[in-house]
Amino acid sequence: MDYSLLWLNRKPAGTLPPWAGRLAGEVRTPQGRAALRELEQALAPHRDTGPALRLREEAGEGEGYRCVREGENLILTGTGRGLLYGTFSLLRRLTLGDEAFPDAERPAYPIRMLDHWDNADGSIERGYAGNSFFFREGKPVCGPRTRDYARLLASVGLNGCCLNNVNVRGESLHLLTGKYNRELREIGETLGEYGVSLWLSVSFAAPLEQGGLPTADPRDPAVRRWWQETCGRLFAAVPDLAGFLVKADSEGRAGPHTYGRSQAEGANLLADAVKPHGGSILWRCFVYNCTQDWRDGKTDRARAQYDTFAPLDGQFAENVYLQVKNGPVDFQIREPVSPLLVRLEKTKCMAEFQLAQEYTGQQRHVCCLAPVLKEVLDFRGPAGKVKDRISAVCAVSNTGGDFNWTGHDLAAANLYAFGRLAWDPDLRAEEAVREWTRLTFGDDPRVTGTVTDILLRSREVYERYTVPLGIGWMCVPGTHYGPSPEGYEYDRWGTYHKATCREIGVERGPAGTGYTAQYGPELGRMYGEIGTCPEELLLFFHRLPYAYRMKDGRTLLQRIYDDHFSGCADAEAMAEAWNTLEGLVPEDAFLRVRERFAEQVRSAREWRDVINSWLYRLTLIPDERGRTIYL
Amino acid sequence: MDYSLLWLNRKPAGTLPPWAGRLAGEVRTPQGRAALRELEQALAPHRDTGPALRLREEAGEGEGYRCVREGENLILTGTGRGLLYGTFSLLRRLTLGDEAFPDAERPAYPIRMLDHWDNADGSIERGYAGNSFFFREGKPVCGPRTRDYARLLASVGLNGCCLNNVNVRGESLHLLTGKYNRELREIGETLGEYGVSLWLSVSFAAPLEQGGLPTADPRDPAVRRWWQETCGRLFAAVPDLAGFLVKADSEGRAGPHTYGRSQAEGANLLADAVKPHGGSILWRCFVYNCTQDWRDGKTDRARAQYDTFAPLDGQFAENVYLQVKNGPVDFQIREPVSPLLVRLEKTKCMAEFQLAQEYTGQQRHVCCLAPVLKEVLDFRGPAGKVKDRISAVCAVSNTGGDFNWTGHDLAAANLYAFGRLAWDPDLRAEEAVREWTRLTFGDDPRVTGTVTDILLRSREVYERYTVPLGIGWMCVPGTHYGPSPEGYEYDRWGTYHKATCREIGVERGPAGTGYTAQYGPELGRMYGEIGTCPEELLLFFHRLPYAYRMKDGRTLLQRIYDDHFSGCADAEAMAEAWNTLEGLVPEDAFLRVRERFAEQVRSAREWRDVINSWLYRLTLIPDERGRTIYL
Repeated sequence: MDYSLLWLNRKPAGTLPPWAGRLAGEVRTPQGRAALRELEQALAPHRDTGPALRLREEAGEGEGYRCVREGENLILTGTGRGLLYGTFSLLRRLTLGDEAFPDAERPAYPIRMLDHWDNADGSIERGYAGNSFFFREGKPVCGPRTRDYARLLASVGLNGCCLNNVNVRGESLHLLTGKYNRELREIGETLGEYGVSLWLSVSFAAPLEQGGLPTADPRDPAVRRWWQETCGRLFAAVPDLAGFLVKADSEGRAGPHTYGRSQAEGANLLADAVKPHGGSILWRCFVYNCTQDWRDGKTDRARAQYDTFAPLDGQFAENVYLQVKNGPVDFQIREPVSPLLVRLEKTKCMAEFQLAQEYTGQQRHVCCLAPVLKEVLDFRGPAGKVKDRISAVCAVSNTGGDFNWTGHDLAAANLYAFGRLAWDPDLRAEEAVREWTRLTFGDDPRVTGTVTDILLRSREVYERYTVPLGIGWMCVPGTHYGPSPEGYEYDRWGTYHKATCREIGVERGPAGTGYTAQYGPELGRMYGEIGTCPEELLLFFHRLPYAYRMKDGRTLLQRIYDDHFSGCADAEAMAEAWNTLEGLVPEDAFLRVRERFAEQVRSAREWRDVINSWLYRLTLIPDERGRTIYL
Repeated sequence: MDYSLLWLNRKPAGTLPPWAGRLAGEVRTPQGRAALRELEQALAPHRDTGPALRLREEAGEGEGYRCVREGENLILTGTGRGLLYGTFSLLRRLTLGDEAFPDAERPAYPIRMLDHWDNADGSIERGYAGNSFFFREGKPVCGPRTRDYARLLASVGLNGCCLNNVNVRGESLHLLTGKYNRELREIGETLGEYGVSLWLSVSFAAPLEQGGLPTADPRDPAVRRWWQETCGRLFAAVPDLAGFLVKADSEGRAGPHTYGRSQAEGANLLADAVKPHGGSILWRCFVYNCTQDWRDGKTDRARAQYDTFAPLDGQFAENVYLQVKNGPVDFQIREPVSPLLVRLEKTKCMAEFQLAQEYTGQQRHVCCLAPVLKEVLDFRGPAGKVKDRISAVCAVSNTGGDFNWTGHDLAAANLYAFGRLAWDPDLRAEEAVREWTRLTFGDDPRVTGTVTDILLRSREVYERYTVPLGIGWMCVPGTHYGPSPEGYEYDRWGTYHKATCREIGVERGPAGTGYTAQYGPELGRMYGEIGTCPEELLLFFHRLPYAYRMKDGRTLLQRIYDDHFSGCADAEAMAEAWNTLEGLVPEDAFLRVRERFAEQVRSAREWRDVINSWLYRLTLIPDERGRTIYL
């Protein structure tokens, strides 16, 4: 096999409960059959009588399951999908030696999915783990890996997967128009067996690009008709299709704004077309001016999404989900939570995370994102926590055709934790990470301790040696790997720090761009005042002199110097800690990760030295501790 | 025809001298026949008797010609090639209405050529005028355009052309090994008719890449044999081949250093192989460390070429020409002349210029390079002027498949002037530019005045609004278009300014990297002392505080601000000047150039604002004249 099964490699072992010796009950749906198959493979039942694990399949669409003891039997009840999740949950607990089985569980959100930025030519936009396993040479492909991918997703509770890049180009445009229906149907069935729905990214301009119409205006009757007819044919041919993901009016792509219509009109056009087929629309809110003139000191990109979408609250059809990135800008290592996620009242929101580590080390650096997910889900806005207000979750996938799926073996923890937290946002990040570590590397406490420690520290270590204090965007333009402190400073993307020899940062409080008001009065005041603004986001919200005193008495500049020195030292220490696991983890994984760590350490030193040198050149204020900063 | 004939569009007109009515004499060589054909087409002779232009073809390899009156006849004497150059010279003078014909002329250098960076796939590295007309879809192609290109080259006195990119990759590797001999022979013959020799770029690693040998070590007998046999076959199949151009040990390419051998050993290996066939080797000196650590404050890229090649003076075979870029770094808008061009005593040097405007506006900006060529050719080193010491000249071509060949119509002046100056380095830049303007646009003095004025000011205008004072390298990494003041600052290319809030530049005098010593005592002292260093190169040679006083009393910083404001204003004025020519020049050319000027003005403003803002943010010292600088 040219790929690993990751956390599914490990099976229940040792003494199993008596009920594990026999499987009973009947299943009728593909998902129920998949559950049964997983149990057979993992438990290898050997008795025809006696205590049993009994599956009771119910009809319906639900995803929850119940699990009760009846004497020496264990009864697992649910729909086919419910049985599947119950099965994976049981197997996980058995593998981990966890004796407590839940009475009942059901997922927090009806949509828990991965967005693939895979292109038809087999490349992956912002992909760091090899080429696509969904597309090869212009065509969708389905094979054993598709099925095992679905198993991996189902095993952590995920139930959806958008196949293709939101930037729909080239041959991907034909996914909508029937050319690849056979392949899509096959992929849909294969994923569907494991409860994973198929989603497609579509181009808002499809009526023009594919339909031969002169416009894509949502008010044009011919456009409405084209979408309705196209969806009619597509959903009939691909029964497992759940709906569309749309990047409209975003980074050069067409959208309703092209025709002077609102985002709601655009989204509802598609929502109407998929509704007869039970479909939904995932409408991205990543709408901002990406041809900003850096000389324009008034526009603040952080404001753009809320300014565009908040006035439309209540205007979206009920089968529209607004897909909102976790922060207001773009997946930086630290951003405040997007105000859209806490302020919309009458709109379904889907939180979007990015497991693909575009700005967080590109799967060459360890950067465990479970703490980021938790931080966002647990964030309390004026009307409650994000996790209680959103209706769905998704993440840009970090997977590709590499043997280990995620480029960096430790990046698989992000995939795992995302699934677990999407199912149960109350799970603690540490639990998810520890589960993944034990399922992946077994129960040696030296391994578990070291790996979970590396993972749980990694985000904050990465933040310190790259861009601490919420400043963001000091990466190399285009590739987004490695430091370039002024790389975006005179560009068109609206991401500036405008550092001078005395100050750095954009003022986003009431005296500045007013962005903080988007959070409502209370949070707005907290972020807007320097004294109450959380320090880790200080430079996201405020423009400050380098001499500003942090709470611990250090100057802002010294804090940044210190963060780079300590972050880099910690990256070195993590690499050394990994080296202590030689012989305790499989050799191939050990060597792969060791190689990644070598690059991480090299890169961390580069970040440390570039950012520190750049600040030193700007200010000529030396490090108080006399460490080396290069002129 | 899908391309213009440029300056050859215009023919002699009005009353011609009596001898122009009849052509006489005999020609035997292809070049003699080409001369006769050019004369017939241009003069359309109509008499069978009476005064004549008589061609007298001599045997031999010379390129000079003599032109004498015998009564009412004009006698043009020379080899076939000599007749060709005499013919184009006569026709040019007739077209321009110039009554003085030279008695005799011959070119200053035996090799006057263009280097094409064309790839086999049809792309052109650093090409700004469309795709290659030498290659299409992996194969060399020959057609009418090939012949007209040869005519254009011959008409300005050029006699060589290297077909393919010095970075030899992909299908281009097969040019050496016989796969495309038929096509090369055809191209060679077509060019050869107009006296243009064919050169090929080859890979030093060819014995490995193509020959299946385990090494390309110049001391390995099998490697020597492989080159000898390969050259034997190739030169037999392609008789017009003149030799090879080689980029070795340069920017990641293999070379003799790969095997611990000297550049001389590498060059001589190839020189020996081509010698039996009368071939020569053009060996590039662009050897430097392109994986420099920016933290390494000791290495100075400007030193690298002289440090590598000067100790080898006298060791190169007599059919080796060292191809030396005009400056020590890489074709920036202003560099000092490379010390290799003035210090080598026993080695043939070929000066290399870059008409492809990689760093000088990419043929979207007007930047006439004739003044640069003259500056270099006229530069006086310890043992005489560059033009008297070099043995050959070449330039990276600025041509491609565009209708106007050079992207920007006015960039054709660079092609023209390079040819004229390569033939006669004593020609004044103004003369070459004025000739081109009149041949291209005719004799309206408003046009001639405006266009020559634009062209002759353009280099210095571009310099002011981009990177004045010799600092260089503030362009966007990779593309090299547009400003990025710190884009190369933490990169691996050895091109740093290390600007702080107080100082800028690299000290290359005796107190710094010692680069100035490469010029010998007298010039070294001149450049090494701040007071005698030419101001236009001040920041190339010295690290100075922004408060440094220039000769006119302004601070260094104010001078840079001023240069950006005035350079940009001058770019705007040039665009306006061009607009006054509407109706006076052909409409298609007018519109094409107007469009280019719109981009030049946009880009000049961007340069002005980015560089000024960057310096203002660094220093917080305002412009003394209160003009707008953006924070």
